[in-house]
Amino acid sequence: MDYRGRRQQAFQQAQALGVEALLITHLPDACYLTGFTGSNAVVTLTARGATLYTDGRYITQARAAARGLRVAIAKRSALLEACAALASQGIKHCGFDPVHTTIATLDAMRKSIPSVRRHSFFVKTPSLIAHIREVKGADEIVKMRRAAALGCRLFEELLPDISPGMRESELAATLEYRARMAGASAMSFSTIVAAGPRSALPHGEASNARIPRRGFVVLDFGVILDGYCSDMTRTVHLGRVQKHEQVAYQAVLEAQEHAVAAVRADVSCAEIDEAARSVLRRHKLAQYFTHSTGHGVGIEIHEGPRIAAKQLQRLVTGMVITIEPGIYIGGKFGIRIEDMVRVTEKGSEILTPATRALITL
Amino acid sequence: MDYRGRRQQAFQQAQALGVEALLITHLPDACYLTGFTGSNAVVTLTARGATLYTDGRYITQARAAARGLRVAIAKRSALLEACAALASQGIKHCGFDPVHTTIATLDAMRKSIPSVRRHSFFVKTPSLIAHIREVKGADEIVKMRRAAALGCRLFEELLPDISPGMRESELAATLEYRARMAGASAMSFSTIVAAGPRSALPHGEASNARIPRRGFVVLDFGVILDGYCSDMTRTVHLGRVQKHEQVAYQAVLEAQEHAVAAVRADVSCAEIDEAARSVLRRHKLAQYFTHSTGHGVGIEIHEGPRIAAKQLQRLVTGMVITIEPGIYIGGKFGIRIEDMVRVTEKGSEILTPATRALITL
Repeated sequence: MDYRGRRQQAFQQAQALGVEALLITHLPDACYLTGFTGSNAVVTLTARGATLYTDGRYITQARAAARGLRVAIAKRSALLEACAALASQGIKHCGFDPVHTTIATLDAMRKSIPSVRRHSFFVKTPSLIAHIREVKGADEIVKMRRAAALGCRLFEELLPDISPGMRESELAATLEYRARMAGASAMSFSTIVAAGPRSALPHGEASNARIPRRGFVVLDFGVILDGYCSDMTRTVHLGRVQKHEQVAYQAVLEAQEHAVAAVRADVSCAEIDEAARSVLRRHKLAQYFTHSTGHGVGIEIHEGPRIAAKQLQRLVTGMVITIEPGIYIGGKFGIRIEDMVRVTEKGSEILTPATRALITL
Repeated sequence: MDYRGRRQQAFQQAQALGVEALLITHLPDACYLTGFTGSNAVVTLTARGATLYTDGRYITQARAAARGLRVAIAKRSALLEACAALASQGIKHCGFDPVHTTIATLDAMRKSIPSVRRHSFFVKTPSLIAHIREVKGADEIVKMRRAAALGCRLFEELLPDISPGMRESELAATLEYRARMAGASAMSFSTIVAAGPRSALPHGEASNARIPRRGFVVLDFGVILDGYCSDMTRTVHLGRVQKHEQVAYQAVLEAQEHAVAAVRADVSCAEIDEAARSVLRRHKLAQYFTHSTGHGVGIEIHEGPRIAAKQLQRLVTGMVITIEPGIYIGGKFGIRIEDMVRVTEKGSEILTPATRALITL
């Protein structure tokens, strides 16, 4: 990973906004810029270079991460010592990310510097690092492809275990155990196993409910492998599939494939969303598609861009997004199909190649 | 759970601060006040009652949670619709929690109300709900006792599985699988399994490192059961224990027990911290005790109060705190012993009664 290059890119963008320093407090951003994965990290970028502030628990890890980076072990607050150090270096304007800074934190930051400068020192900037992170480098794509491939393998290995009478949470436990044993450090988010009527909950985290004999089971999960998240959804069916269920599944699949086919550099996010939604509209199912079509994914499970109506942002080669239309018919059933898709110049690459055809068990 | 009573208590405190409405945006706070566990929730409290704002994914769950509570399904942003509704009801001052509100969010909140009122409408308050949550009710204690007991059972069941050559992450996977199968919805935090020299990392999340033949293994983990977190640490030893290891273990144990013995209503948090630290100082080990002694625990793994030096806050009957001194001798070994402790009028109750004597495997 080219941490130094990332820091240079971020600092140049900060300078272009008129600040001489950039303060990074969001942990995934700090990790992106340094490789340091501890739970307490603040990074400052100035013309004099980068400094990583953490605490005494992480002396060893921080020094290991530090290539071309100063490390400061804070005695009290990594953040406030970072602010004080910037002020003492003669910095006049320090950019910070208002999306990841609370009112209470900014108050404390202001108190950490000389009172005469409090009013003008901290300057809101757009979320520069989040924006840089949207476009993945080749080394990141390698890691994301591996994380996605592990997700697919786990899905396939789980199929023989899905059986009526077992609790959704037991299925999730089995999946998560295998993920850990295969090297995942954690799941990307709370595993969704939503069976039978619960499949109609768009956000049906695995519960103690038992899987019924008949009906759809939505499986939406991801692993974190080597610092990168995977994310995929497949909907399988237990027992005999009724005609209207088959028709609904095909409609969602068609919507998903239509949206994937629309992905390529320079297309707007709204167009991708509309590609999925228009298919469901034609099938008179659009009213049941109650969320957006997808989101960026990477170090965090939800990153930019948002693949939703009215989002004018355009896709860029190297972005990795999810495409996940679904329909939810309250009290009856739900279906969602989700892939991770890498944006290329001429189209896209699906990172989660598990079959999307309806699997009946 | 007396959700209505909690809301009344919070609203009375808000009124005493001079605001006619309180806006609650922190999810665990919203859950505490309503029982609703969805991933999008904003609660408003006014003299006219309470309203829960969420989105279309949660219609069913929100209505189930709603006793004596209005439910509003937001079309776009639950938060901004809540703000707009308060402004339209003639509210003049709305309290909000600066610890859980970002600069960007407050900017958006201000834009959601008529421009003439933007300057004075939103008023910073202390974190009222966090403060109320520090003292647990009897029904919460029942749940926390169960979560803590599950943690202890899992620890005991894990002992036969700890063996040299196995990866730390495999041990964590086994523990987490059993937690899930026993009904835990998730772990409270990333499981720490730190073996051999890695035990000297105060925050050694289970890694791919293999457990050595000889040395300490720190196990620090918690389960979330029925919405409440457990938290415990035990340090076991593989192979023959050397004299200085035995001495160090006894010193940490003595420090931990001394701090637990100091717990009772009206004692300051600093005194509890000092009770642990003074024992280690006597053993000339205080320099290796590089973190604070504990923290409150409940719906979240880290709640108030902080059990640390200079914390003048006094313990109150019904608080549940951790007592977790440890020592970390870089490159050699680390030891930590942690219990969850309920504060009572005359002393305390340990919720995690697993043995603290040194277990050698």
